[in-house]
Amino acid sequence: MLSQNHYDSIQLTPEGQLKHFLTIEGLSAPLLTEILDTADSFVDMGAQQVKKVPLLRGKTVANLFFEASTRTLSTFELAAKRLSADVLNLNISTSSTSKGETLKDTLMTLRAMHCDMFVVRHSASGAAHFIAEHVTPDVAVINAGDGRHAHPTQAMLDMLTIRQHKGDFSSLKIAIVGDILHSRVARSQIHALRALGAAEIRVIAPLTLLPRHLEAMGVKVYTEMSRGLRDVDVIIMLRLQKERMQSALLPSESEFYKLYGLTEAKLAYARPDAIVMHPGPINRGVEIESSVADGERSVILNQVTNGIAVRMAVMSMAMSGQLKDNQLSAKA
Amino acid sequence: MLSQNHYDSIQLTPEGQLKHFLTIEGLSAPLLTEILDTADSFVDMGAQQVKKVPLLRGKTVANLFFEASTRTLSTFELAAKRLSADVLNLNISTSSTSKGETLKDTLMTLRAMHCDMFVVRHSASGAAHFIAEHVTPDVAVINAGDGRHAHPTQAMLDMLTIRQHKGDFSSLKIAIVGDILHSRVARSQIHALRALGAAEIRVIAPLTLLPRHLEAMGVKVYTEMSRGLRDVDVIIMLRLQKERMQSALLPSESEFYKLYGLTEAKLAYARPDAIVMHPGPINRGVEIESSVADGERSVILNQVTNGIAVRMAVMSMAMSGQLKDNQLSAKA
Amino acid sequence: MLSQNHYDSIQLTPEGQLKHFLTIEGLSAPLLTEILDTADSFVDMGAQQVKKVPLLRGKTVANLFFEASTRTLSTFELAAKRLSADVLNLNISTSSTSKGETLKDTLMTLRAMHCDMFVVRHSASGAAHFIAEHVTPDVAVINAGDGRHAHPTQAMLDMLTIRQHKGDFSSLKIAIVGDILHSRVARSQIHALRALGAAEIRVIAPLTLLPRHLEAMGVKVYTEMSRGLRDVDVIIMLRLQKERMQSALLPSESEFYKLYGLTEAKLAYARPDAIVMHPGPINRGVEIESSVADGERSVILNQVTNGIAVRMAVMSMAMSGQLKDNQLSAKA
Repeated sequence: MLSQNHYDSIQLTPEGQLKHFLTIEGLSAPLLTEILDTADSFVDMGAQQVKKVPLLRGKTVANLFFEASTRTLSTFELAAKRLSADVLNLNISTSSTSKGETLKDTLMTLRAMHCDMFVVRHSASGAAHFIAEHVTPDVAVINAGDGRHAHPTQAMLDMLTIRQHKGDFSSLKIAIVGDILHSRVARSQIHALRALGAAEIRVIAPLTLLPRHLEAMGVKVYTEMSRGLRDVDVIIMLRLQKERMQSALLPSESEFYKLYGLTEAKLAYARPDAIVMHPGPINRGVEIESSVADGERSVILNQVTNGIAVRMAVMSMAMSGQLKDNQLSAKA
Repeated sequence: MLSQNHYDSIQLTPEGQLKHFLTIEGLSAPLLTEILDTADSFVDMGAQQVKKVPLLRGKTVANLFFEASTRTLSTFELAAKRLSADVLNLNISTSSTSKGETLKDTLMTLRAMHCDMFVVRHSASGAAHFIAEHVTPDVAVINAGDGRHAHPTQAMLDMLTIRQHKGDFSSLKIAIVGDILHSRVARSQIHALRALGAAEIRVIAPLTLLPRHLEAMGVKVYTEMSRGLRDVDVIIMLRLQKERMQSALLPSESEFYKLYGLTEAKLAYARPDAIVMHPGPINRGVEIESSVADGERSVILNQVTNGIAVRMAVMSMAMSGQLKDNQLSAKA
Repeated sequence: MLSQNHYDSIQLTPEGQLKHFLTIEGLSAPLLTEILDTADSFVDMGAQQVKKVPLLRGKTVANLFFEASTRTLSTFELAAKRLSADVLNLNISTSSTSKGETLKDTLMTLRAMHCDMFVVRHSASGAAHFIAEHVTPDVAVINAGDGRHAHPTQAMLDMLTIRQHKGDFSSLKIAIVGDILHSRVARSQIHALRALGAAEIRVIAPLTLLPRHLEAMGVKVYTEMSRGLRDVDVIIMLRLQKERMQSALLPSESEFYKLYGLTEAKLAYARPDAIVMHPGPINRGVEIESSVADGERSVILNQVTNGIAVRMAVMSMAMSGQLKDNQLSAKA
């Protein structure tokens, strides 16, 4: 794992402004708070008649999805269009491989077309970093999920949802439940919660789905819901990757649901005003009981709404930082 | 079949304004005329240099096509863009089923992304109604074809084309020819023609392709072109679904063409100034003779032009009605 | 091959203004220079914050790609969006053939939807001409590559790149290297270079990849790089179609690279300030050595940037010419 200074130098300008958004690691509480505040202003805009601002007018955003994800692609596409950007959706894997072009050549070509921002989704950890470091001196890169490493916009929309419902993080106990081992979402959430000063971060999972050294990240580890959920203010369910089921790591769906599925009964362990979160799409009856997903303590649809707002926030902030950085470089 | 009051309560505001556009059934002649008048204004705009109005600026239109149809999708996409909306094309069947999400979850998610309008195409009759009733308290739903039930924008573009060429409906004899049994287009046309006061509505088809109880809809039934086309002012050919050919319902293509294909010879049965319509894409030599499709009495390409205008009309009217309805609900 | 007068009458207005852009053949040096000058103004715009002009606002551009090409499609899509047009990408081959519609019906339908411009890519030589001649009295047609015939926007972006680096054409020696026989790009380049008055045009290829009668086009033919590259100012490498490799026409990739690949060693035959061009995507180690492709004499990425600008230029010029032509026709 790279040092904090290393990450800072990639995704921040010398003045500490965002110019890429690759990972939560190394970002300060004030910067994360600035993202949340900016996103809040876009949430308000969603209630208005005209949900559009000209912040990225005349800019081109290229969505480079090496790994298919209709839902995440749609949220970035909508966020970019509501910022008035022109959007280019590229199924880059098939187009480049079919003609034998290297990744670097593809990216340099897109940059030469004056694309201003790459939104990157890739199955390899570190792909967005690689692109930001080696290929694009003046293009802002947004990480839309890279392997098991990070999914920072998902983590920030979760933080926004928690802050909207619970206010200050310093008194909160938060439990993350499910396949921690394979989850880039969980990693990004833990970094964000630590930076924002959450009182207590817990993970709940079977031993086979727990990475090592979690305690070193300041996290309390539980293997039983009855103990892990006790007195928490926020429950974050992870999505179960069904393809893992075939492996030896996981019990059957029904076995998992019995032990770790969030039912009304298990929800009772948490605080009476605890909120329930899930990144979606939900598997009803696998990770979560339908009545909980649709219940009054579920904030799952707020997460979706906040997902657009957070993406608009990081896209506009990174574009602004990238432009300032280039103007400074041009003078130097 | 549901009562007229039931349909009214779904697709109309308490003041009788359109807020969804699901079916022609239950819509009054004045409302249908308002749609045609609004569409006429958009037809005029098509001749101008800038074919764009800001009526849906800052709104997001999601095209949910569960059933593929490149042509219909293109007309809705163009109509939305010319109203200045942001457009999201979703191949929703593959995206949702591949991740095991329910239809309701998909729709609630799109609504949480602040999509303002769903254009729905589905192979199941009633799909658009279901969505309008159960899922979307503040999203306008436009039916772009549901099973055998309805295809109301197609019917309205046909009405616009008839009115442009023939003026008043009250003196017109209109024949609809082809596979009536499986045609959502024919159902919607019959409802529209009745509401607009057409003098005489005829259908012409082999017995195997005629639904029962047609006479109860105020329609005259013919099985021979020579009798059915006599003295009509308007001939509407239906598109033959080639997949039906394999079934026992239909004779061969050449047999169908011989009996029901619109040739120059059969066209002579109609009035000398009769117009010829077809929803497209046409099967030359199956439903229609090439010289008739391309002849001076064909208004098939006018239908295409009117298709954009009618879609712009119902999209802008439903959005306006939906917004007023929500403002009233918010006050109540 | 058609006469120059014939081409003029198709793609030029009576006043000699561009109304389609189908081929370089028959276009005068002043008109080609006007395209380059217009493109230059769009290149400058690319460096600005807002890379958008309203020249095609309210117009609809339909990209009709019968032959898949993600990269070329992307450049036309971006060019159209930066001119503020609405863009419709149609995978027209599958959509029309699956419903049995003829090409002519598809095009007449798109025209009836008030599409203002067709960008056409087709594997058959002459497809764009056919469309411009027979189908579209008031739609501007841009040829994005037709069979072995022409790829005029590629040739013009190459001319722009040469002019930016070398200024006047009248003193330049230019070599085109590779599969001349199958290359629509080479044909268009030769026409453009001749019209713009290049001092000397050479082609370098194995005998099996050389068309007959090249000398009649005013071109010098070489089969060896050592002689063909001597003292040239510009080297244009062609892309090798790997599917040709299976045929008897071509040696193996390594054999081709040895004889015709542009290495540092072979580059030394040219003038010390010679520039290196390639239409992309490049096959490193087949047509070109990596260090040459990425070296200081390579202008490959400039070509990409110029590709957007040239497409914006011909799209806006053809639209303007088409509109004037229609106004004149309407008065007559």
